[in-house]
Amino acid sequence: MLKTYNYATLKKQEIDSLIARNTDPSNAIQEIVDGIIQEVRTTGDQALIDYAQKFDKVALNSLYLDADAIDALAQTIHRDQQRALEIAFQNIHKFHSTQLRRERAVETMPGVKCWREVRPIEKVGLYIPGGSAVLPSTLLMLGVPARIAGCKEIVVCSPPQSNGQINGFVAYCLKLLKIDRIYLVGGAQAVAAMAFGTESIPKVDKIFGPGNQFVTKAKSTIQSLTNVSIDMPAGPSEVLVIADETANPAYVAADLLAQAEHGADSQAVLVATSQEIIDAVNVALAEQLPALPRRELAGKAIENSYAVLAADLREALAFSNSYAPEHLILETSDWERHTRYILNAGSVFLGHLTPESAGDYASGTNHTLPTSGYARSYSGVSVDSFVKKVTFQHISEVGLQHIGSTVEILAELEGLQAHKNAVSIRKS
Amino acid sequence: MLKTYNYATLKKQEIDSLIARNTDPSNAIQEIVDGIIQEVRTTGDQALIDYAQKFDKVALNSLYLDADAIDALAQTIHRDQQRALEIAFQNIHKFHSTQLRRERAVETMPGVKCWREVRPIEKVGLYIPGGSAVLPSTLLMLGVPARIAGCKEIVVCSPPQSNGQINGFVAYCLKLLKIDRIYLVGGAQAVAAMAFGTESIPKVDKIFGPGNQFVTKAKSTIQSLTNVSIDMPAGPSEVLVIADETANPAYVAADLLAQAEHGADSQAVLVATSQEIIDAVNVALAEQLPALPRRELAGKAIENSYAVLAADLREALAFSNSYAPEHLILETSDWERHTRYILNAGSVFLGHLTPESAGDYASGTNHTLPTSGYARSYSGVSVDSFVKKVTFQHISEVGLQHIGSTVEILAELEGLQAHKNAVSIRKS
Repeated sequence: MLKTYNYATLKKQEIDSLIARNTDPSNAIQEIVDGIIQEVRTTGDQALIDYAQKFDKVALNSLYLDADAIDALAQTIHRDQQRALEIAFQNIHKFHSTQLRRERAVETMPGVKCWREVRPIEKVGLYIPGGSAVLPSTLLMLGVPARIAGCKEIVVCSPPQSNGQINGFVAYCLKLLKIDRIYLVGGAQAVAAMAFGTESIPKVDKIFGPGNQFVTKAKSTIQSLTNVSIDMPAGPSEVLVIADETANPAYVAADLLAQAEHGADSQAVLVATSQEIIDAVNVALAEQLPALPRRELAGKAIENSYAVLAADLREALAFSNSYAPEHLILETSDWERHTRYILNAGSVFLGHLTPESAGDYASGTNHTLPTSGYARSYSGVSVDSFVKKVTFQHISEVGLQHIGSTVEILAELEGLQAHKNAVSIRKS
Repeated sequence: MLKTYNYATLKKQEIDSLIARNTDPSNAIQEIVDGIIQEVRTTGDQALIDYAQKFDKVALNSLYLDADAIDALAQTIHRDQQRALEIAFQNIHKFHSTQLRRERAVETMPGVKCWREVRPIEKVGLYIPGGSAVLPSTLLMLGVPARIAGCKEIVVCSPPQSNGQINGFVAYCLKLLKIDRIYLVGGAQAVAAMAFGTESIPKVDKIFGPGNQFVTKAKSTIQSLTNVSIDMPAGPSEVLVIADETANPAYVAADLLAQAEHGADSQAVLVATSQEIIDAVNVALAEQLPALPRRELAGKAIENSYAVLAADLREALAFSNSYAPEHLILETSDWERHTRYILNAGSVFLGHLTPESAGDYASGTNHTLPTSGYARSYSGVSVDSFVKKVTFQHISEVGLQHIGSTVEILAELEGLQAHKNAVSIRKS
């Protein structure tokens, strides 16, 4: 049952409180993570083997699996599962392969030519969560754009199962991505290993991937500690569904529950244009929830979530833009007219037949998206996340004549004589 | 006089040490910055007025200047200076305006349509350093892409002069950018004000701009403390010049000194293909340095810098890629053949007549660039830095038939039944 607020009567402070996300209150996690980072930094592989024993309950002989082992594991899954992973791979590849485009050079003045060229980030690290939730889809979502970008080295870390192996689904995705090694390291120690490098694990330039609060904290810590960068800050997953009179309450409830089953801290927000819709969705939630295997988590998440009653779609979108959801579903009939007013969101699902789970797995869009309001300033992961755009320029003799005195005047007014000299000496 | 190392005889560890940048060793700065952030957060405008008194030695009546005051100040600068700022504005605008492009939709399967749309970051904060170094060029480098992106609110902070005003050059840039207010706040307190908002200063979504070590530390602190993001981590400025036999030693020396005059911690690295070039550049440095107003700073920076002797351009580029310089100048005759091998750099200047100072001010490229090796994973500021790319998708009835079972299989193998339901319920 979703608590309901009426948008028209909400004060600014109440809206601020509704759109606020949980932030990690605990310093205890930071201390644990700092300890793990320090240990990995100083004792390398040995620390990783010790943590595998401690956290994953497995005595590892080797910190990685190679092509043969991956091949064998990939054969253990059903053909229809292989086929589903292949289709997801193809769709993700098809969508992401349009994201890299050559840019033309611009002659800003005669003889002054400027342009950008794309370069892959050479070494990237992908963290794939394991343990209770096995997420082969995340490997596709990170590995495909890394491959399209042309990254030279793709380091994949995932926690080992108790038998020292990895999941067959993850193995099959490795094969699709032509990645022939996976490191059996999980948690904050995996992030530390990729940030500093160990005897077995290469240091990378940028680390990607979701994870539990230890992984997340480790990523933000190495971001401020080293010059290794990260994809984005991460928080609990969230969806905001906007429903009008044409919405099917059963679909809306199913979408809210798909978000809610991720964990008790997931947020599933409904913004509806009438109280009748909210009531009908609550009825559908009560019907669907008891049948779910993860009903306990999902039920808690729904309790922590809420509904907002809006006068119309304009108001609904205003609230959504303030909230800046990771996922936004527009369960309305005339969504075409409204997309332009969507300002802050990670990924948007349009119409009655576009569930978020399509984008989570297989439609082609990326599922690594900004949470916790970061959609105000961050994009989701794309090929852009795996490349740099380097600017180049060339100035000819004619160009130097055109631009020279402007540079000299500006350098002088900033009091930087040597900057001016670098032009003057070339003009003489 | 540059210390010289021979690339051929360098061990990996020595290269690692050469490419390492200074990192801030001081915890004292962190404590001071934490204190300032806390004070601004709790007492708002009053803290800003107090800090202006303390750090900028000025008693402010108002925390900002409006259009009339900006107009008046803009008239105080010479017409040729106005003209130079206009040309810089136009070139920067011309180059950056090509960076936003509509992307076409992709039909990944029949009836499954995915695309990205660009949305401006609504509220951005630009920090423009003041005090000893006045940098109107930085205002253009940040303001132009913010305007092209379509950001709704552009908050500009810059420390006040002792008379409570701002510099006329900055005022003129504000007019070019059609920004009609500037906040008279500098240092870490400006970053805190834009991150949390005060009575006068709006909270923003992302903060841009260079600054001293307090500003830099404040940016990295608010990045981990709030969901306000920042353009990039910042360190001392740096250049790497690659020179072959065709290079003019006087030009090379001028370029190294243009970098060196920024501060004693700037790095100016020369990579040359013969000892003769290094010797000739050292002679030219000795000639040019004494004439500089900032010779003391520049001299110290040169002492902290070095030269590397490479066998050929291939080796020179290998070292440069390891170093990942903010600025790379290729003072060689046949640069066309070599650009493809440049992997890690912020901005690249090609040939004998393309000094870095052209790009610092007026050629059109951005001068806000990744330092300290961040060029391995970061791009410089561009219009991309001021927008998000939001993914959209629409699935038709036909599309749901095509993609439905794939999503169901993948949701099931990840153990997420509610994800599967969101599809199944729509198929039935």
